[in-house]
Amino acid sequence: MPYFDAASSAPLHPVARQALQAALDEGWADPARLYREGRRARLLLDASREAAAEAVGCRPDELVFTPSGTHAVHLGMAGSLSGRRRVGGHLVVSAVEHSSVLHSAAAHADRGGEVSEVPVDRTGAVAAPEYAAALRPDTALACLQSANHEVGTEQPVAEVAAACRAAGVPLLVDAAQSLAWGVVPGDWSLLTGSAHKWGGPAGVGLLAVRKGVRFAPQGPVDERESGRSAGFENIPAVVAAVASLRAVRAEAEAEAARLRVLVDRIRRRVARLVPDVEVVGAADRRLPHLVTFSCLYVDGESLLHELDRAGFSVSSGSSCTSSTLTPSHVLKAMGVLSEGNVRISLPAGTTAESVNRFLEVLPGAVAGVRERLGAPSGAPVPVEGDALVVDALGERCPQPVIALAAAVARVSVGGTVTVLSDDEVARLDIPAWCALRGHAYLGESPADAGSAYGVRRLH
Amino acid sequence: MPYFDAASSAPLHPVARQALQAALDEGWADPARLYREGRRARLLLDASREAAAEAVGCRPDELVFTPSGTHAVHLGMAGSLSGRRRVGGHLVVSAVEHSSVLHSAAAHADRGGEVSEVPVDRTGAVAAPEYAAALRPDTALACLQSANHEVGTEQPVAEVAAACRAAGVPLLVDAAQSLAWGVVPGDWSLLTGSAHKWGGPAGVGLLAVRKGVRFAPQGPVDERESGRSAGFENIPAVVAAVASLRAVRAEAEAEAARLRVLVDRIRRRVARLVPDVEVVGAADRRLPHLVTFSCLYVDGESLLHELDRAGFSVSSGSSCTSSTLTPSHVLKAMGVLSEGNVRISLPAGTTAESVNRFLEVLPGAVAGVRERLGAPSGAPVPVEGDALVVDALGERCPQPVIALAAAVARVSVGGTVTVLSDDEVARLDIPAWCALRGHAYLGESPADAGSAYGVRRLH
Repeated sequence: MPYFDAASSAPLHPVARQALQAALDEGWADPARLYREGRRARLLLDASREAAAEAVGCRPDELVFTPSGTHAVHLGMAGSLSGRRRVGGHLVVSAVEHSSVLHSAAAHADRGGEVSEVPVDRTGAVAAPEYAAALRPDTALACLQSANHEVGTEQPVAEVAAACRAAGVPLLVDAAQSLAWGVVPGDWSLLTGSAHKWGGPAGVGLLAVRKGVRFAPQGPVDERESGRSAGFENIPAVVAAVASLRAVRAEAEAEAARLRVLVDRIRRRVARLVPDVEVVGAADRRLPHLVTFSCLYVDGESLLHELDRAGFSVSSGSSCTSSTLTPSHVLKAMGVLSEGNVRISLPAGTTAESVNRFLEVLPGAVAGVRERLGAPSGAPVPVEGDALVVDALGERCPQPVIALAAAVARVSVGGTVTVLSDDEVARLDIPAWCALRGHAYLGESPADAGSAYGVRRLH
Repeated sequence: MPYFDAASSAPLHPVARQALQAALDEGWADPARLYREGRRARLLLDASREAAAEAVGCRPDELVFTPSGTHAVHLGMAGSLSGRRRVGGHLVVSAVEHSSVLHSAAAHADRGGEVSEVPVDRTGAVAAPEYAAALRPDTALACLQSANHEVGTEQPVAEVAAACRAAGVPLLVDAAQSLAWGVVPGDWSLLTGSAHKWGGPAGVGLLAVRKGVRFAPQGPVDERESGRSAGFENIPAVVAAVASLRAVRAEAEAEAARLRVLVDRIRRRVARLVPDVEVVGAADRRLPHLVTFSCLYVDGESLLHELDRAGFSVSSGSSCTSSTLTPSHVLKAMGVLSEGNVRISLPAGTTAESVNRFLEVLPGAVAGVRERLGAPSGAPVPVEGDALVVDALGERCPQPVIALAAAVARVSVGGTVTVLSDDEVARLDIPAWCALRGHAYLGESPADAGSAYGVRRLH
């Protein structure tokens, strides 16, 4: 049963399992104690820290283990922002960071801090000069992911790190998605990671803070992990996490090359096999194992359910699968279609056969959902006029776009369609539909209820 | 090789190991996902929450899992204090709480809050009426451990909970040391626990917050665990933690009765076998598996080292084993001797034979350390005067007390000894020595360097 959601959580690597077994016997005691069980635990922890530091590219005394990648981000951002509060309260992040970064930024703003979000292009990448321009004399911290978790686009970390260094601003790199694949390039100041993303167990994150970076841990004092991460050390899980990081790194080059072939195949074939689809994210500078596309006239939840029934576990950044009713902030920042969004992230060891099977199943799954939802068939329909108004109030993604497509077929070329919608997703998906189908998006204006979106038929 | 430090961390229970194994296969995926691996993980998490809630005595939706007991305390105190900040900023704790509680209290004071510490008697117990008297109209939160982690004394939780309920103040009970033995009695409002103390794995704490208790989670928003504990859920460890809690509870009554016999044996025999020893903590209302005693004229580190060499892993609240140079805040609050302090906490399954062997080894270990340190032998020495001054400046525990004992033997009955000491521990141990040996402690006064401690020989 193919599991294609490694970016959420990777299955446990066999090396992690073996290491965990052994460390359960050797690493359960308190490493602060002087008796033999404590000394054994301390040795395991020290050795794990050295190996992790080597894999990250820092000194062992610069690295602490945290209970999760989210904790690493929360602790790293809070400690750095507080350590540099005399410099100022300005924080720079990209618009497509992981929610743990953006929620930390929101908490910083709630405390009176100021946050600048650097926008991204349609591939999801920041431009290094634009990022550099956001840095100010009162910037306490800058954050940039190594690669995006929803679309796989790599960020220009080395260039941004150089700009930050030049401006005297520490850069925190959220490397959760890329640490399995290699060392993060560039002269970063802080780095975070999450073991269950690389095949390690849950319960282990890591936070590296380079010597010389001002850092003031927040929260109640706790002597564990150099005072930077509270709570009893989870040594068996740490040992397993580090052992599996070394193992995936040893396989990384070969596995990346192999998965890149499979991902490129998905990128090419999805665009060919599925009508009205947008493959999103950068074509080149990207994670080797992750590909994302959005399907017009499809709701993500139904599609994921169809794929699950067919034996494929995939994820989605579509609001149609979540309770929030707002589309993925990543797809929104990129300005790309969000409806019918599917993220494929292949775990190490994924076979070509399973990918091929997925590509066989996908077109039928999409067509089935579209049929049930009444998506436009593409068959010619009689023109009804040159200005139609579609009332999609109260309808949720993807219905407003389906209604729009049906209406555009019924106006003359050069005519307009106005869609009334109170669905938050329409704001993103109507312009994205226009770009995808080659029609003109005329903009949004307030209506009695919701918004009115104007579209001109061009062909 | 007997390990007698379960209160620091218990060896993994066999049931925890089995459950962990199984849950590594079933519980590694993201429980927020809708595909089968996610649904399986969610089922495991839900079932674990129900079982944990039953063991704690609360509703499943009142309980969240945290990365450690320390996190549970930090999150519980911060959330409760913030949720009730309109009531006031006053916090009540006992003087002998775990450091995670006291450090949270210090952080609260740093933010402008006010903290009252309720003192304890010589057994380490608070008096419920005294605790109740500390509650005020502006008290936001009260904290009381179920039983003390260093001396095993049980606190009058039910009585204090009733007083808190009457005053409209939520009571947070740190149940880390007692949860293995049974449900915490009384009408508490919040409760915290730590799995590795009951034979579960590291990486799991729990926080229960009764419905109706005002609670405002602090830190960046995170949707996991009802928004009360951030980070990807550690489901395999949670499953193992809860399975082992049920297992130890099933064995608790029989095991408690068995260990109580062994602990009572240690309490009786240590007092008989080792001269100049003070067994501390309540004689009756106490944890079944924990006993603590302090040995005059001994430094804890040397004694622990001797015992480790003899194959026994024990702990100490003595400052002589730590880098802080301040004695255990628990022993200090109790006003009992801290030097040569040894804490024995027996894990489930400890054999009578290993305890008997410990009792055979202990007297020789203590005598050996005393001989090396030049402790008084008890042999009569000639009287030199009726007022001696001992300069112990720069000397560390237990040397000032050894010097005092030697000097008292050399003054006439009714004469005085003045000890000059800059050791923080002397402030606790000189009065404790007087109480133990039946001499009069005359008090402390400032000296050119350190303090002068006066003692009158009474016999």
